[in-house]
Amino acid sequence: MNAADLGLPVAVPSTALFTDQYELTMLQAALRGGTADRRSVFEVFTRRLPEGRRYGVVAGTGRVLDAVENFRFDDAMLAFLRERGIVDEPTLAWLAAYRFGGDIWGYPEGEVYFPGSPILRVEGSFAECVLLETVILSILNHDSAIAAAASRMSAAAGGRGLIEMGARRTHELAAVAASRAAYVGGFDSTSDLAAGFRYGIPTVGTSAHAFTLLHDTERDAFRVQVEALGRGTTLLVDTYDVGEAVRTAVEVAGPGLGAVRIDSGDLLLVAHRVRQQLDELGARDTRIVVTSDLDEYAIASLAAAPVDAYGVGTQLVTGSGHPTGSMVYKLVARADSADPTAPLRPVAKRSLGGKMSVGGRKWAARRLDAEGVAEAEVVGTGAVPEELAGRLLQRQLVKAGEVVAREPLEAARERHIAARAGLPLSAVQLSRGEPVLPTEYVTP
Amino acid sequence: MNAADLGLPVAVPSTALFTDQYELTMLQAALRGGTADRRSVFEVFTRRLPEGRRYGVVAGTGRVLDAVENFRFDDAMLAFLRERGIVDEPTLAWLAAYRFGGDIWGYPEGEVYFPGSPILRVEGSFAECVLLETVILSILNHDSAIAAAASRMSAAAGGRGLIEMGARRTHELAAVAASRAAYVGGFDSTSDLAAGFRYGIPTVGTSAHAFTLLHDTERDAFRVQVEALGRGTTLLVDTYDVGEAVRTAVEVAGPGLGAVRIDSGDLLLVAHRVRQQLDELGARDTRIVVTSDLDEYAIASLAAAPVDAYGVGTQLVTGSGHPTGSMVYKLVARADSADPTAPLRPVAKRSLGGKMSVGGRKWAARRLDAEGVAEAEVVGTGAVPEELAGRLLQRQLVKAGEVVAREPLEAARERHIAARAGLPLSAVQLSRGEPVLPTEYVTP
Repeated sequence: MNAADLGLPVAVPSTALFTDQYELTMLQAALRGGTADRRSVFEVFTRRLPEGRRYGVVAGTGRVLDAVENFRFDDAMLAFLRERGIVDEPTLAWLAAYRFGGDIWGYPEGEVYFPGSPILRVEGSFAECVLLETVILSILNHDSAIAAAASRMSAAAGGRGLIEMGARRTHELAAVAASRAAYVGGFDSTSDLAAGFRYGIPTVGTSAHAFTLLHDTERDAFRVQVEALGRGTTLLVDTYDVGEAVRTAVEVAGPGLGAVRIDSGDLLLVAHRVRQQLDELGARDTRIVVTSDLDEYAIASLAAAPVDAYGVGTQLVTGSGHPTGSMVYKLVARADSADPTAPLRPVAKRSLGGKMSVGGRKWAARRLDAEGVAEAEVVGTGAVPEELAGRLLQRQLVKAGEVVAREPLEAARERHIAARAGLPLSAVQLSRGEPVLPTEYVTP
Repeated sequence: MNAADLGLPVAVPSTALFTDQYELTMLQAALRGGTADRRSVFEVFTRRLPEGRRYGVVAGTGRVLDAVENFRFDDAMLAFLRERGIVDEPTLAWLAAYRFGGDIWGYPEGEVYFPGSPILRVEGSFAECVLLETVILSILNHDSAIAAAASRMSAAAGGRGLIEMGARRTHELAAVAASRAAYVGGFDSTSDLAAGFRYGIPTVGTSAHAFTLLHDTERDAFRVQVEALGRGTTLLVDTYDVGEAVRTAVEVAGPGLGAVRIDSGDLLLVAHRVRQQLDELGARDTRIVVTSDLDEYAIASLAAAPVDAYGVGTQLVTGSGHPTGSMVYKLVARADSADPTAPLRPVAKRSLGGKMSVGGRKWAARRLDAEGVAEAEVVGTGAVPEELAGRLLQRQLVKAGEVVAREPLEAARERHIAARAGLPLSAVQLSRGEPVLPTEYVTP
């Protein structure tokens, strides 16, 4: 993927209103109270993985960088805030000049994570950091949920093709982000043209049942499709009778037919029958694509079936039972004054009720066992133990407001495959279990 | 809500690539095969409600109208399709001139629906209708899922306030649509500024734990907040000890304090204690807002607690266990030729496997019993029985390509409240059950 493949914008011009109102009211109060400029460290982490999941997948980091760059209040937005009386004039003036000028460190995209992993760290004045909470969490919680489901599906699929087809089951722009996250998690292509346009993801798709129904006979439909798209196309064979359709398909396209798609019925049974029929008709290289309500378990159950590619929709874009992450954005350290040299003091919520946090600016490293397999996620404050210095997970993503770590999507995808391969084998078991790595805290 | 409140754009300039590739390849094949101009009728419906749900809520209709209007292929999009070789030159030329010129009828936004309800009907040439499948389904499946969850929550909340706070748990633009759908389903306000900006939904929000942690003491934080935002503000009282925080809050703001927010712990217990404490401190009008992982069941369980408003996040924007609808977009009738006077022939997929459809262009009506309560969703082809003529549900939304039914969001919200009130009382029971109305089919 070259620089041109970084894609074209399918995005709103500004991300500044993807913000919960309390961020602006806190800003106003802090500006007035003289505490807005206290140097602050916010961290993104999750207290737990979705129940039964063995690992999480960081996705959306590239979108976070776009969002931070485009977080600017334009005149229409400022007018809205003024008319609604959401903040006062000094705050509006401050917002009009807003550009994030701090630093962001984080797990690179595609990396795996565990409870407590400091996935992202945002440093700067309280004022400049507090505004980014909602948009950062929206992106990471959504995209990471999809990537985690995609990763499980890609592990279940072995080397077979995986097509993301879920656009119709999620918000139209969430769908574009879902395609992107699915690609990071190991999918190969998408049906969503906007995802191809924006992120350079390979796109696929040929026809639906409506196309067959439009024509007077199935044979007419197949003939028209093959004439228009070539014999390498994929013919949908379950509008009427699958056996008849496969016979007609090979008659019309010849044994060089690219693929057939099956979208209903008992896929295991039907795939075996269709494979046998295709082979008998001499169409030994015609591929079989299946696409009906698949999830990682259905994919795994088809491992012994003669299936070449899986199209996955609903369960992928809804995170296979876990449509969002539970990442939070917490103040973990701050200075006692606006003096830029003032030391950072760890802070944490202390009330009862299970929402405890660990204060302090954290590093993270993945410790390996003697065989080079990951054995623990180590999270600490203070000095990094020497033996972990080469295993640190966070990288600088933004430096004094400038994005310093943009990369092609392909890099995140490859990183994910490598990161998953470095985990204990039980990581890719589909059965429910505990996180495959324990999180160990090291405090001075 | 007046016309100005229809809002400002937070949207991409064109919706044309929110499309699965197969729609364009079908178009190319149909153009080449001479079948593209056959008059066609597509319908949106669902074969079933999410398990246990009693009714569905139509939401997103207004966004569908925006999407149809903005469905235009600009030069960058056409260049992308050409470079990727997705369609041929005649198809590109056709797309460059594309404007939907047909008719759309549908259930008005906020109306309830049941399995088989023809929620939307799109009529025109096959070519112009087939392109709209994905974007229409994306919007309706997403928005209706959120509105259905919102409706259950609003029924559970009785007349108490409901604040949508889920932006951080879903894609940043899905969040804006979710706020809109939640409002249709009965929510009162949102924390999401973009939803206020785009749709005029009332916005709320004051402060997070980070604001308390930024300050040297909780008292400092409260004082700064009250000075900046007034004593009508909402103070967050669970950063350290709730009892101490409530006492401090009333000391700082006086008994005229607007509200306190509790975000953790056993909300039932804590709300009772806080109410008692506030009353003892003379803050009898100070409201209590609770916001921790609520869903419709948690809201119902707090019915006897002294809670004034609920803030709902994750479970709302993920559809409370059902993050998407299962609506489909199916060709149900088409002409045998491109002759505009050719009669429409009902069509339907016939294969086995549970994905059956009913062919033919449908009307729908809600039949009432003697007491005026809905007793059946009647769906038919052919002539409408006289006794149902006044109960038809579909309205014309687009006429020859022009949107004819734009309305303020408030209208959809009021319609939903009225439609739900017209259902049997068991509709608003939270327990799982069958759809509260049976769907009856009437065919000539």
